[in-house]
Amino acid sequence: MSEGGKTSLQLGFIGLGRMGLNMVRRMQKAGIDCVVFDLDADARAKAAESGATAADSIEALIGQLSAPRAVWLMLPAAVVDKVADQVTPLLAEGDMLIDGGNSHFVDDLRRSEALAKRGVMYVDVGVSGGVWGSERGYCQMIGAPDAAYAHLEPAFAALAPGVDAAPRTDGREGAPSPSEQGYLHCGPSGAGHFVKMVHNGIEYGLMAAYAEGMNILRHANIGDSQRAVDAETAPLEHPERYRFDLPLGEIAEVWRRGSVIGSWLLDLTAAEMRRDATLENYEGRVSDSGEGRWTALAAIEQGVPAPVLTAALFGRFASRGNDLFANKVMSAMRHAFGGHKEVDTDADKG
Amino acid sequence: MSEGGKTSLQLGFIGLGRMGLNMVRRMQKAGIDCVVFDLDADARAKAAESGATAADSIEALIGQLSAPRAVWLMLPAAVVDKVADQVTPLLAEGDMLIDGGNSHFVDDLRRSEALAKRGVMYVDVGVSGGVWGSERGYCQMIGAPDAAYAHLEPAFAALAPGVDAAPRTDGREGAPSPSEQGYLHCGPSGAGHFVKMVHNGIEYGLMAAYAEGMNILRHANIGDSQRAVDAETAPLEHPERYRFDLPLGEIAEVWRRGSVIGSWLLDLTAAEMRRDATLENYEGRVSDSGEGRWTALAAIEQGVPAPVLTAALFGRFASRGNDLFANKVMSAMRHAFGGHKEVDTDADKG
Amino acid sequence: MSEGGKTSLQLGFIGLGRMGLNMVRRMQKAGIDCVVFDLDADARAKAAESGATAADSIEALIGQLSAPRAVWLMLPAAVVDKVADQVTPLLAEGDMLIDGGNSHFVDDLRRSEALAKRGVMYVDVGVSGGVWGSERGYCQMIGAPDAAYAHLEPAFAALAPGVDAAPRTDGREGAPSPSEQGYLHCGPSGAGHFVKMVHNGIEYGLMAAYAEGMNILRHANIGDSQRAVDAETAPLEHPERYRFDLPLGEIAEVWRRGSVIGSWLLDLTAAEMRRDATLENYEGRVSDSGEGRWTALAAIEQGVPAPVLTAALFGRFASRGNDLFANKVMSAMRHAFGGHKEVDTDADKG
Amino acid sequence: MSEGGKTSLQLGFIGLGRMGLNMVRRMQKAGIDCVVFDLDADARAKAAESGATAADSIEALIGQLSAPRAVWLMLPAAVVDKVADQVTPLLAEGDMLIDGGNSHFVDDLRRSEALAKRGVMYVDVGVSGGVWGSERGYCQMIGAPDAAYAHLEPAFAALAPGVDAAPRTDGREGAPSPSEQGYLHCGPSGAGHFVKMVHNGIEYGLMAAYAEGMNILRHANIGDSQRAVDAETAPLEHPERYRFDLPLGEIAEVWRRGSVIGSWLLDLTAAEMRRDATLENYEGRVSDSGEGRWTALAAIEQGVPAPVLTAALFGRFASRGNDLFANKVMSAMRHAFGGHKEVDTDADKG
Repeated sequence: MSEGGKTSLQLGFIGLGRMGLNMVRRMQKAGIDCVVFDLDADARAKAAESGATAADSIEALIGQLSAPRAVWLMLPAAVVDKVADQVTPLLAEGDMLIDGGNSHFVDDLRRSEALAKRGVMYVDVGVSGGVWGSERGYCQMIGAPDAAYAHLEPAFAALAPGVDAAPRTDGREGAPSPSEQGYLHCGPSGAGHFVKMVHNGIEYGLMAAYAEGMNILRHANIGDSQRAVDAETAPLEHPERYRFDLPLGEIAEVWRRGSVIGSWLLDLTAAEMRRDATLENYEGRVSDSGEGRWTALAAIEQGVPAPVLTAALFGRFASRGNDLFANKVMSAMRHAFGGHKEVDTDADKG
Repeated sequence: MSEGGKTSLQLGFIGLGRMGLNMVRRMQKAGIDCVVFDLDADARAKAAESGATAADSIEALIGQLSAPRAVWLMLPAAVVDKVADQVTPLLAEGDMLIDGGNSHFVDDLRRSEALAKRGVMYVDVGVSGGVWGSERGYCQMIGAPDAAYAHLEPAFAALAPGVDAAPRTDGREGAPSPSEQGYLHCGPSGAGHFVKMVHNGIEYGLMAAYAEGMNILRHANIGDSQRAVDAETAPLEHPERYRFDLPLGEIAEVWRRGSVIGSWLLDLTAAEMRRDATLENYEGRVSDSGEGRWTALAAIEQGVPAPVLTAALFGRFASRGNDLFANKVMSAMRHAFGGHKEVDTDADKG
Repeated sequence: MSEGGKTSLQLGFIGLGRMGLNMVRRMQKAGIDCVVFDLDADARAKAAESGATAADSIEALIGQLSAPRAVWLMLPAAVVDKVADQVTPLLAEGDMLIDGGNSHFVDDLRRSEALAKRGVMYVDVGVSGGVWGSERGYCQMIGAPDAAYAHLEPAFAALAPGVDAAPRTDGREGAPSPSEQGYLHCGPSGAGHFVKMVHNGIEYGLMAAYAEGMNILRHANIGDSQRAVDAETAPLEHPERYRFDLPLGEIAEVWRRGSVIGSWLLDLTAAEMRRDATLENYEGRVSDSGEGRWTALAAIEQGVPAPVLTAALFGRFASRGNDLFANKVMSAMRHAFGGHKEVDTDADKG
Repeated sequence: MSEGGKTSLQLGFIGLGRMGLNMVRRMQKAGIDCVVFDLDADARAKAAESGATAADSIEALIGQLSAPRAVWLMLPAAVVDKVADQVTPLLAEGDMLIDGGNSHFVDDLRRSEALAKRGVMYVDVGVSGGVWGSERGYCQMIGAPDAAYAHLEPAFAALAPGVDAAPRTDGREGAPSPSEQGYLHCGPSGAGHFVKMVHNGIEYGLMAAYAEGMNILRHANIGDSQRAVDAETAPLEHPERYRFDLPLGEIAEVWRRGSVIGSWLLDLTAAEMRRDATLENYEGRVSDSGEGRWTALAAIEQGVPAPVLTAALFGRFASRGNDLFANKVMSAMRHAFGGHKEVDTDADKG
């Protein structure tokens, strides 16, 4: 949390889910006056315990805000438009609507344009940090008109991890910039979610890089497997090379200190593997929640290659079985030209 | 089959499996005198019906050949070395040993060097055509010393499809070149299997291209699916775009005439899909038999990018479940940073 | 061209460019009465020489058609909407508007819906065949309401290559289906361009597969290169494996007969390489014209993996230098963690 | 550096380059008695300043060691075998030879087997840390017989960063394990370099993920570019979406705190971009130094998919122009089927 005294910023906050409630708590601690609403009365009560003012309805919430009013939505992407449509008529020139969820930046552009006609400023905040944000603080990528950014900066600063969360970059001196505290005004409306989208696209690539590496390590003992020889599967050419039983959890741990590939995602992997290095409680069906797709779409629209990020995305699709028909087509072709039958000798039972 | 009269070429031929027997028949028809051996007496008898001379043993086979002796091996890659070791001591300076199987070109280089010390010429022939070769003829990519190639050319010509198998390329006139008949002296020993290896690498890429396209066509009705909404899976953003039930078998057929993507692999796909466009008899476990791997290895050793060919290879590995642990690692990470659970809503049951 | 007698079909045809003029000629030969317009008077005159009726304006063209009127647009994708907006007000219930260009199927869905309100049927025809279509005939993938398809079928049949363009698929007997003649009613409006889009996506994959394979063949002599040793570049581990000077043009030719990878694209490659196997007149900047991007977007929206098709697309982007900044970022990282400098020893000067 | 008192370990150390000299210094500080040799007398002198004993030759170095003798080689991979051949005859049963460089694990297996015949133990240590190691300590992945590992552990502990270099993983308590201090006995000889190889493979994937993301961010203003319209290049479909001028250096900085993608590589990127966010001093020719290739080869030999790691590797090959001929092949095909010409409108001049 950034340092500094109390602020007089007031904020309406709609959506007290996993992330929203923690964000309100963090802002209240920093002296920001939050008026909150959620359909769930329990969540409202919890927020009230942190000092927030709970409102019974969106209308009531808006009614308790002083101009210029700032309303922060922290909602699933699918309902943002619906709630925004409720809020918008209650706002007036100079007010601000903030979307802190995971909207597509294209939707931001649309909303921003529509709201601008009413004099309302639209602000998109890409928030990273997941369930750890209440402890670590939230990294925020912000798209906003300058005036809105200036008004809301105390909230961003309150939510951010603060400069002490990492050593300063060589050459950065004096008062820490917002970027060093963990929030950044990236540009006009849409820019925040654009940067957050790419952030998540990168995340997919990083995760897949570790995952593929771990998979290779796990198969380092494949030379010890008894494998039936058949004409349909390439034999292991050098079984003598692959007789290592590697301690995956310890490897994840050792990479955390002094290596080139240390990262927060590696920290999490090491923690998961400490509990169970076989990960047998997972089935390996990897979901994707939008931003990875949008990143690939943006790259394609731009004409910019993104083979690694897209391979990571497609790996997730395939993990859910969506490559099945393609594979059947290839099996059918092999059968047609060579009489090849499908075999089961190379299956990974792990 | 190339035109021309009978030839006086004599050939020892070891290995009368699916391809070997048909090749002997084709050569006998062209007047090539084949002395054959196979462990299977039935296969020997069948070859004898085509006019070949069946020998009871490798020694007997060699004994019936006149110098310079030429022995063609048509064997699984895994046993070539073993049989070559039996044949080699029986050969003398000026003789030829031909490997018509799917050896790695690196093994050719090794064998060629060893045989050269004894004055024996090593010839590697990459043969494409699969089970269709007896009807279509065999495309042959040949690595050989010049003298061996010259001696054996009648056999290559007999096995080849002949120039009439395809329209002549614009600008090619006069007597058809060997390449136009379907065989080619690619270079010294090893060159034949090198070219065949890349041929198969390309084949993997072509097959995957059709397969991925067919998979996209098959999912063109995904907007009609009832899919449970959950926070873990990106929703289908435009269900209204994906309401087509496309006739896959008819599409494969229509592409066969006049389109840019017509090919023999497409012909086979159309034939398979005519029988059953759902391909429900296939499980989608796609084997790979070596050459695709070797092509990728060669590209990597050369420092030459092969993203398409390698993606096709990796798709086969994943079709057999070998991406499982990598996917578990990603699920574990997602759980760790976001509390995400694995869900089952986007599974392809098809 | 499909057999059969003269037809009484009448067609308005707008756009007499490279493909349009040839299509009109082919239809006129089949007895279809074309009323044509193009901004270019020369093109109109040429069409008139084939028996078509040239109109001086779009209005004049429409005026000469009998109900139900059918107007075929053969225009660059970028101007289809503009011309369609001119044509539409002149059409009435039961009339048909056909887009034979390369529209995105999403635009078809929009247009179809808009026209349906006026009772006008929208037909999208994906046409493959390139500059060769006038000779080979055109493969057509059609999205249309049933009534429009039935009305227009004589035109499709006239444009198609006809069943003799390829051997019949095993098991197909009796009167050839439309798909066997080279045209197919794929589904309602949009389905035609959807299938054509995927067709082109596959085309990208096929082309890249051949191209990567040829590149590996071309580097088969890399072991002969003198390469400066430096700490920044992985040395060639096995130079002795890569000493082949392969005849690329002859290889393309030999694969045309009897091999598994024979195709029309290979035929073209063999023809190009016969003229100059070094391809030195090309710079290797590979354009993309939309469908490959749309195919990737569709796969991503569907959640279907398309690693090969997308790798092919990204290879084109990179061929135009659009990977430059990403590469600079990697060089900067290498410099930062290892003091690595960029070197020039592994450059492909070819 | 791990805590604890002085140790009596003595070590011969050959190779005082960028990393070796710093490693000797770090070990001397921890009380390890190093006898050193390097061809460069200056380097020897510098090591002597740190308290090491400089030897004039390899023979002299060995002569000053007490049994069991341990000789650590810190040399370029290309000369390890040569120096090992000099050292080996001077070693006796119970002695140890350590390779701390970047050998391929396959070479380790070979050397280990050869040395075992003489009773000498071979130890491979994959060392990560780059030029930063003298400050941060070195992450070490060790393959060794148990006895050798036990003897050498004080050296590994001295070189390692120590547990304080990162917060302890949740659930790890009591005395820190070696993995928590930054070194790990991964398994028998070869295991250390195997794990280091995969470590570097992952590194390639991570770097490419950030690089691709940064490239997409950099092109976020592509909608503002004036681009000539031509028939050869897909137009930018939504220029209105891409009008952001994003502050790349600030974005790299903001991601360092609180985000999911924080990492040491990101720290380095932020530092590089602080100096010059355009990276104009780099040309974008990205070298690769072996391990990335070996990782891909291992995955392929295992039959394990590694699409992300391999795409990252191929991106480096392409950055050096090695995709050129493949691109010419595609341009030639496009010319052949469509009369397409290469154009220059989409070039990235940045």
